[in-house]
Amino acid sequence: MSVVPRLMTLADLSGPQINRLVNHAHHLKHLSLPWLAPQQATKKKNNLRMPSQSLFNKSIALLFSKRSTRTRMAAETAAVLLGGRALFLGSSDIQFGVNESPRDSARVIGGMCEGIFARVGAHEEIEELARYSPVPVLNALSSFWHPTQVLADLLTLHEHAHLFSPDTPAPSPTKPLPPLRPLTIAYVGDSANVLHDMLVTYPRLGHKVRVATPPQPQYNPPKPIWDRVVELGCDKHIVWSNDPREAVKGADVVVTDTWISMGQEAEKAQRLTDFAGYQITETLCREGGANPDWKFLHCLPRKQDEVDDEVFYSSRSLVFPEADNRKWTIMAAFDLLFGKWDITGEKTLKGGE
Amino acid sequence: MSVVPRLMTLADLSGPQINRLVNHAHHLKHLSLPWLAPQQATKKKNNLRMPSQSLFNKSIALLFSKRSTRTRMAAETAAVLLGGRALFLGSSDIQFGVNESPRDSARVIGGMCEGIFARVGAHEEIEELARYSPVPVLNALSSFWHPTQVLADLLTLHEHAHLFSPDTPAPSPTKPLPPLRPLTIAYVGDSANVLHDMLVTYPRLGHKVRVATPPQPQYNPPKPIWDRVVELGCDKHIVWSNDPREAVKGADVVVTDTWISMGQEAEKAQRLTDFAGYQITETLCREGGANPDWKFLHCLPRKQDEVDDEVFYSSRSLVFPEADNRKWTIMAAFDLLFGKWDITGEKTLKGGE
Amino acid sequence: MSVVPRLMTLADLSGPQINRLVNHAHHLKHLSLPWLAPQQATKKKNNLRMPSQSLFNKSIALLFSKRSTRTRMAAETAAVLLGGRALFLGSSDIQFGVNESPRDSARVIGGMCEGIFARVGAHEEIEELARYSPVPVLNALSSFWHPTQVLADLLTLHEHAHLFSPDTPAPSPTKPLPPLRPLTIAYVGDSANVLHDMLVTYPRLGHKVRVATPPQPQYNPPKPIWDRVVELGCDKHIVWSNDPREAVKGADVVVTDTWISMGQEAEKAQRLTDFAGYQITETLCREGGANPDWKFLHCLPRKQDEVDDEVFYSSRSLVFPEADNRKWTIMAAFDLLFGKWDITGEKTLKGGE
Repeated sequence: MSVVPRLMTLADLSGPQINRLVNHAHHLKHLSLPWLAPQQATKKKNNLRMPSQSLFNKSIALLFSKRSTRTRMAAETAAVLLGGRALFLGSSDIQFGVNESPRDSARVIGGMCEGIFARVGAHEEIEELARYSPVPVLNALSSFWHPTQVLADLLTLHEHAHLFSPDTPAPSPTKPLPPLRPLTIAYVGDSANVLHDMLVTYPRLGHKVRVATPPQPQYNPPKPIWDRVVELGCDKHIVWSNDPREAVKGADVVVTDTWISMGQEAEKAQRLTDFAGYQITETLCREGGANPDWKFLHCLPRKQDEVDDEVFYSSRSLVFPEADNRKWTIMAAFDLLFGKWDITGEKTLKGGE
Repeated sequence: MSVVPRLMTLADLSGPQINRLVNHAHHLKHLSLPWLAPQQATKKKNNLRMPSQSLFNKSIALLFSKRSTRTRMAAETAAVLLGGRALFLGSSDIQFGVNESPRDSARVIGGMCEGIFARVGAHEEIEELARYSPVPVLNALSSFWHPTQVLADLLTLHEHAHLFSPDTPAPSPTKPLPPLRPLTIAYVGDSANVLHDMLVTYPRLGHKVRVATPPQPQYNPPKPIWDRVVELGCDKHIVWSNDPREAVKGADVVVTDTWISMGQEAEKAQRLTDFAGYQITETLCREGGANPDWKFLHCLPRKQDEVDDEVFYSSRSLVFPEADNRKWTIMAAFDLLFGKWDITGEKTLKGGE
Repeated sequence: MSVVPRLMTLADLSGPQINRLVNHAHHLKHLSLPWLAPQQATKKKNNLRMPSQSLFNKSIALLFSKRSTRTRMAAETAAVLLGGRALFLGSSDIQFGVNESPRDSARVIGGMCEGIFARVGAHEEIEELARYSPVPVLNALSSFWHPTQVLADLLTLHEHAHLFSPDTPAPSPTKPLPPLRPLTIAYVGDSANVLHDMLVTYPRLGHKVRVATPPQPQYNPPKPIWDRVVELGCDKHIVWSNDPREAVKGADVVVTDTWISMGQEAEKAQRLTDFAGYQITETLCREGGANPDWKFLHCLPRKQDEVDDEVFYSSRSLVFPEADNRKWTIMAAFDLLFGKWDITGEKTLKGGE
């Protein structure tokens, strides 16, 4: 079964493979958007090109033991555009590993569908699932990694590349994405799955990462994560501190995430104390010396704790295009991983077919 | 965002626009039904015309914070016939406004799909949703309004127009709906969302409405509803009393609804007392002087409290065709609002394409 | 409404009708599999034949008051391949018969869709549903019967017919299924729905059934089941004992099921005592005198109580092909019952169209 492809983290892909995936998302997006516009009485869609139909007749299981709006909707709507169908199985539908062994469940579920997009709890669960599934497994979020979020962030940054270097053209629906100049990307918050995929990804694409987490050890990345960072040589381009001001120094992009993930509600009071001073504000970034044109990313849902309204609803904030891009990057991953079993391919893809 | 269309209540449409919508439902229904018949081994469906495919490749979010069978099934099956996909998000999937602000949720959900069909609690919630959604929002039921129910009732009445005036022809699949003679429509029960949409609709289509609710103030329509009734000039054609006999006087159609809506279970005993004498029966309608050929409507689910078996399962009762018509009127609203952004259009639609 | 077809148990079909259904599943499976393979960049699927599209534009309601993974996924993915859509309604979506009478629910739900696949509790519930539904009802599992499981078992046995008689050819995607020599099929466990459908099916297809259940009366089949067995003349080919060794004597196939069905958790300790000695093991089958080449079936999910790992993960075990075949047999039943209203037809079906 070792030939069945999978994607647990962007650390599983090379830099060129990641860029290929993001460019594929760009093409699929612009093939899809005209189909999604209101139908004009006078204009037929006969001449529109269809995006890849690699999921035609196929079903993708969404195995979600945690509630999700964005990831789920992105997956379900992307599957439609690829000609397929996503089948949502929430925690009230299936409790992975409860009524039968994870091994049996993985084999049976994988025998009914053509791909599994799984949001489980502990990262070992999705590894177990991938071990026994006869079809590809894509990580929709685990305790360790969140690859589809960082893909969406990358697409969003490329689409706004002209904001970072004025001579870069704005993106065109019919051309490859514009390149990004080397950026300094700051992350201020908890060392959680989004950050982990940033750490193994951005340095390999030429960007610097600056991180601030509270000094307590529980806010450090788990050892298996950091091992992976070092193994890929990414650590050389990462600066880690416990001072948000230090992290945003020279930052072109500032990223944060919730301080209290699902399941951590009991620790809320302690966490609010530990993250005092970590809220992203204009003042913090000015005092820390961020690039005056810094942009803001957040995977949502957002609380005021971690970023104030002034930043969140400002023109610096790319959070809504970023949310929209969850759909297009998931669509690209579905097409290449589930439809074509070609997620690690090197061949340049011509458009989105 | 003010150009994004929406439909919160039939008060948002003119009389001709409502008639156009109901006629569109009739056309879509009769284009669809042959596709839904059992497949004959000997007969292919190659020559059948397809209904409008304005939702092809598109996804409609069903944001339902209240349980629903009819509305949900109608929406999901109608979306299929329009070439699209409905994505059901129940209260266990999403709690609108709980994990993030309604504004953010509306923007994110609306960024992933091409329309939102929402059944929320308080009417302000759907107004908030519509304010920030980048795609059209259709009210699937709120504390104030229930527009799709009254559309289904209208289609049902038109389909049975010949029962009210013998010289009217029975409806034909290939012709526009037969007109309705001016009717007297009685509503006996609680002043709830179905009644509210009746009040702003029937008078503008030439019908009289007679209402009986218990005398206690909680059974009166909320002020914003009555303001809308007056604003549209509908109040002149409405007779309101506290006596069911008075309400059914001369009635061609008698309508009721549950006395205990979802969330009102605690008030059950009090409500059963307040509605004593409000059960729809042959005796009530005879004594009240209804048209001897009166017909019965109910949006379902039904309890015996509000209507007895004799009426409910009689030939007077149009409740099951009425339930079926939820599907066709929702299909028409989906096509015009989500597919074509043309719910307020005036152009005559040729058939169901 | 008596002309609306239904399938509550395989006892509703004749032997030839059952064989036709299993062969139809075989054809549909092999028309479908090429569509489900990864898309090759270089090879288009233009020349592939589509399986039957008898559910095109249609919706099938999955009315499941019990949780299900296999049956649900099989149904949803099969509907996709038939061009249709399954609409899952779980116990959090609908409580059949709670908010309105079963009669009204059956009529309304049946008015919105083109078939109902129902997994309810007590068998009377699905009978009530079928009585009032205007569209066909298929039993997805009831307290009495489990017809789609035994269809999957039959397809699996036919696909492995060459293991039982060496001169039988292996199955070919393009030919009818190879015949099965007369088999001895042992069932060791509780007298539950899977066994019941075995009892009314295998004897009519030329096979012998040997059963062992504990001696306590609650492990005997309910009277209506046994009446049906006798009525069909199946009892003459069934040997019933309380000794697992006696049951597996000469067995070509050994079947078991969970000892503790959903809802029986409270009886767990008592049941574990009552079923002492009933675990399927190599030793049991050797001592009991099973055919040395015996094969193993289990409808899953499986606990170690009823079968040990040595058997379950051995080459004797056909449980995973059996699980996969839930999909193809449900697809055949959907096509013939919901799509074509021809489940009791006698006409030979040419392939899977």
